[in-house]
Amino acid sequence: MPVFRVDQLKGICTKILAAVGADKSEAETVAKFLVGANLAGHDSHGVIRVPQYVKRVKDGMMRPSAPFKIVRETTATALVDGNWGFGQVIGVRAMDLAIAKAKECGVGVVGVFHCNHIGRLADYPVIASGQNMIGLTVVNASPQVAAWGGRTKVLGTNPICVSIPTNGSPILLDMATSVVAEGKVRVRRNRGEETPEGWIMDKEGHPTTDPEALYAGGAILPFGGVVGYKGYGLSLVVEVLCGALTGAGCASSKEFKGGNGVIMGAIKIESFTPVDSFLGRVEDLVKSVRGSPLAPSACEILVPGEPELREEKRRRERGIVVEDRTWSEILGVAWDLSVEVESWMLPVAVGE
Amino acid sequence: MPVFRVDQLKGICTKILAAVGADKSEAETVAKFLVGANLAGHDSHGVIRVPQYVKRVKDGMMRPSAPFKIVRETTATALVDGNWGFGQVIGVRAMDLAIAKAKECGVGVVGVFHCNHIGRLADYPVIASGQNMIGLTVVNASPQVAAWGGRTKVLGTNPICVSIPTNGSPILLDMATSVVAEGKVRVRRNRGEETPEGWIMDKEGHPTTDPEALYAGGAILPFGGVVGYKGYGLSLVVEVLCGALTGAGCASSKEFKGGNGVIMGAIKIESFTPVDSFLGRVEDLVKSVRGSPLAPSACEILVPGEPELREEKRRRERGIVVEDRTWSEILGVAWDLSVEVESWMLPVAVGE
Repeated sequence: MPVFRVDQLKGICTKILAAVGADKSEAETVAKFLVGANLAGHDSHGVIRVPQYVKRVKDGMMRPSAPFKIVRETTATALVDGNWGFGQVIGVRAMDLAIAKAKECGVGVVGVFHCNHIGRLADYPVIASGQNMIGLTVVNASPQVAAWGGRTKVLGTNPICVSIPTNGSPILLDMATSVVAEGKVRVRRNRGEETPEGWIMDKEGHPTTDPEALYAGGAILPFGGVVGYKGYGLSLVVEVLCGALTGAGCASSKEFKGGNGVIMGAIKIESFTPVDSFLGRVEDLVKSVRGSPLAPSACEILVPGEPELREEKRRRERGIVVEDRTWSEILGVAWDLSVEVESWMLPVAVGE
Repeated sequence: MPVFRVDQLKGICTKILAAVGADKSEAETVAKFLVGANLAGHDSHGVIRVPQYVKRVKDGMMRPSAPFKIVRETTATALVDGNWGFGQVIGVRAMDLAIAKAKECGVGVVGVFHCNHIGRLADYPVIASGQNMIGLTVVNASPQVAAWGGRTKVLGTNPICVSIPTNGSPILLDMATSVVAEGKVRVRRNRGEETPEGWIMDKEGHPTTDPEALYAGGAILPFGGVVGYKGYGLSLVVEVLCGALTGAGCASSKEFKGGNGVIMGAIKIESFTPVDSFLGRVEDLVKSVRGSPLAPSACEILVPGEPELREEKRRRERGIVVEDRTWSEILGVAWDLSVEVESWMLPVAVGE
């Protein structure tokens, strides 16, 4: 499979997005975030999405230069009509708005409807953490997950992402409220591999390790194992915030038109405690957690966000491997749009 | 074991708390919330706490009529020094303050330090829901839970509670971020029963079903089963919000002095969408979830809060059973404080 440097993937993605109508700044933001997801090891949210985005633009579902319109506003909150612009572009503006509110009021919450897929959530709360705030992003999405006790798709994978500033990289929790994101089941299916036990059920509601079952009427389980009602409860809360509160619609309703219903939140640390005191407490917490004696099966205790940071370091050194099929689809899209693929964009190596 | 009506338990608890120094309104609030926990089926947070609270008052750790002091404030946030008053009394005032902020700004967040045990969390966010707001309460507490990969207690059970208004009773999620609350392990131990698999590990980090192991250097697991790192991640976030942001201190730090570090939040629905539209969407969501086909092992799909509502109905009809030991401890405390236990307070029956 071909291997790329970051600048190569960003280059070709930016050119393709610009060719389909994105303005320069939009194309760069979307390309940066997609390649960032690849870097972090989340290929399901990476450049694999480019052909899909191009199709959505051509179908009129994703609108370059769409206005970002505030339709309701208070001192600490806002509701935004994204007008089906690029999710990443809307996401950044919505988080920036939440941060501006938090600067003034101590906390800011912004909801968005008519918003395309915003990609990997982690990209947004970290913007808040860069300004000494705790950042929060939650989204709903099309149904993939069963209720606790149910067997059909009624809830999105409804992820929760929180970023906490530290003296180093932020603690960055980014988790689906289902056992697993749908993309990870898809990857197993495409590779002809089984899924681990406890991920999915078939259309009759029986546990299965066959990823095809998800696409034949099955569903992903809410997370929690024996207390899966907790993951289900969190998923419902996300659905209410992102679907019912924003007006994007809940995943299983007719009102929901795809993409993501989005809530962005920011809390200004200084409204509660001096930033240095906060950072000191977080550092002590991380030390005590990390330094606690290991369970027999463990070799290390990590904090959320660390696995992705390590993967990013590895991929910056060794390059990003893109599946043959994804790369040929990207080339196909470039060809269709008469985008010249420059020689410096071509893969540096063929690996794995 | 003795069985009581609500008014009986409230009556004796109020008298005991007043006798130890609580003013009338404080005593009534604490008694109401403790008995409310019994009603909901959560006996671990009910009148069993009365002797413990009396001891804390006598030890000077719980202070009747303690001032509720706002030490930092913005338009949408506040930080409160609870001065070690009764947790329930502080909790209500903190949530009322968050609601007042949300009325003005769309959202309100209030943190509290120097706060005693606030009891069952569900009591606070429902206050917000009564005013067409989404309510949130999170707290940290003394260490009981291992990190993912660890084997010793470094995190509290760090529960998350969210209340969502509906056309009927609120959706009320109230869950520890550990597999189980510590009180439930204690109940098993006191009854000589084993704990289910997946709840706790012993001091060597091996899974066990012996509840004694928790009190001999073991720990409760973060929730999540095969993806327990998610419960661990949520627990860390709660620890940071309630310990590091409020200044109450993280559970495993020297700064932490017991009780709860508390965050109360409220979001005014009307800041985002008309209340009727919101309620309609939530009703549709609940219908689609509840009406989805059942998994083979399930007989019904519930929404969070329903099991407690059913238990409350049952207990209002049949009475609240109090363990012999708890009842004799309460009588003992009453005797010590020269509280006259009036005849109408005595158990209506002896059941189970």
